Amino acid sequence: MPAPASHPAVRILGIDPGSQRTGWGVVDVAGQRLSAVAHGCIRTEAGAPLARRLLQILDGLREIIAIHAPVEAAVEEVFVRVNPGSALVLGQARGAALCALAGAGLAINEYTPARIKSAVVGHGRAEKGQVQGMIKLLLELPSAPSADAADALADR
Amino acid sequence: MPAPASHPAVRILGIDPGSQRTGWGVVDVAGQRLSAVAHGCIRTEAGAPLARRLLQILDGLREIIAIHAPVEAAVEEVFVRVNPGSALVLGQARGAALCALAGAGLAINEYTPARIKSAVVGHGRAEKGQVQGMIKLLLELPSAPSADAADALADR
Repeated sequence: MPAPASHPAVRILGIDPGSQRTGWGVVDVAGQRLSAVAHGCIRTEAGAPLARRLLQILDGLREIIAIHAPVEAAVEEVFVRVNPGSALVLGQARGAALCALAGAGLAINEYTPARIKSAVVGHGRAEKGQVQGMIKLLLELPSAPSADAADALADR
Repeated sequence: MPAPASHPAVRILGIDPGSQRTGWGVVDVAGQRLSAVAHGCIRTEAGAPLARRLLQILDGLREIIAIHAPVEAAVEEVFVRVNPGSALVLGQARGAALCALAGAGLAINEYTPARIKSAVVGHGRAEKGQVQGMIKLLLELPSAPSADAADALADR
């Protein structure tokens, strides 16, 4: 069955939650075409109490969702290889972030790191994995805001 | 310096977050007097996606705060002895719960399990630890709603 001649764009928000920095990227997907919309990093207030920092992640993502109006969200599935203390810290940030996504009614997809890696190589059409790959690239771009996002990855 | 003859009551919400069940208890503290106000358990929807369950914890606590109007919150400090996977799950529930407390502007205190234990024994005056001890007892009472809360403790 041939693909439709044109596809409506679907806007997807990808996030990489962390207690200090939460990287995010928004892409539009229309058929095989992927286009970057915006990306950035939510920095939580250094030295602030944990609960306030978590609320900053929640509120920050709500604001981004209100501005960019994505309909889906992509989150990297966590394979916990770190120690329990680090897993707890990451879990708390992830819990706050997931609340923002669910509160906005977004469909949420989790992706494995392996799938993201293969998506970056590319298959010639826009799979869900490729979308996440593009978001991952946005999060890791060496420009100023994305350097923060790359730090967030390193923090985990 | 003698204690004032009378103390205004301070209402405190104690919580024990868990991905399936989040136990909660509300106590009023006025000088040396502690009185139980209410307690219960937020059950998340079995089989629902993670993000939706986390949002149920956040919204459930918001509702309890709106009804009982506590001014402080008490949360048990986590000593992670479990495996990283369990710590991640607990962290996500804890992140959602802490967002609800911070969003309502509550002062949040964390307590060690040892302090709670000594508080249950009692010192003759209402210390913060005793308050938490009472909340802990509320969470662990063998009546129907508290049995859920006790399960929540076991789940962690």
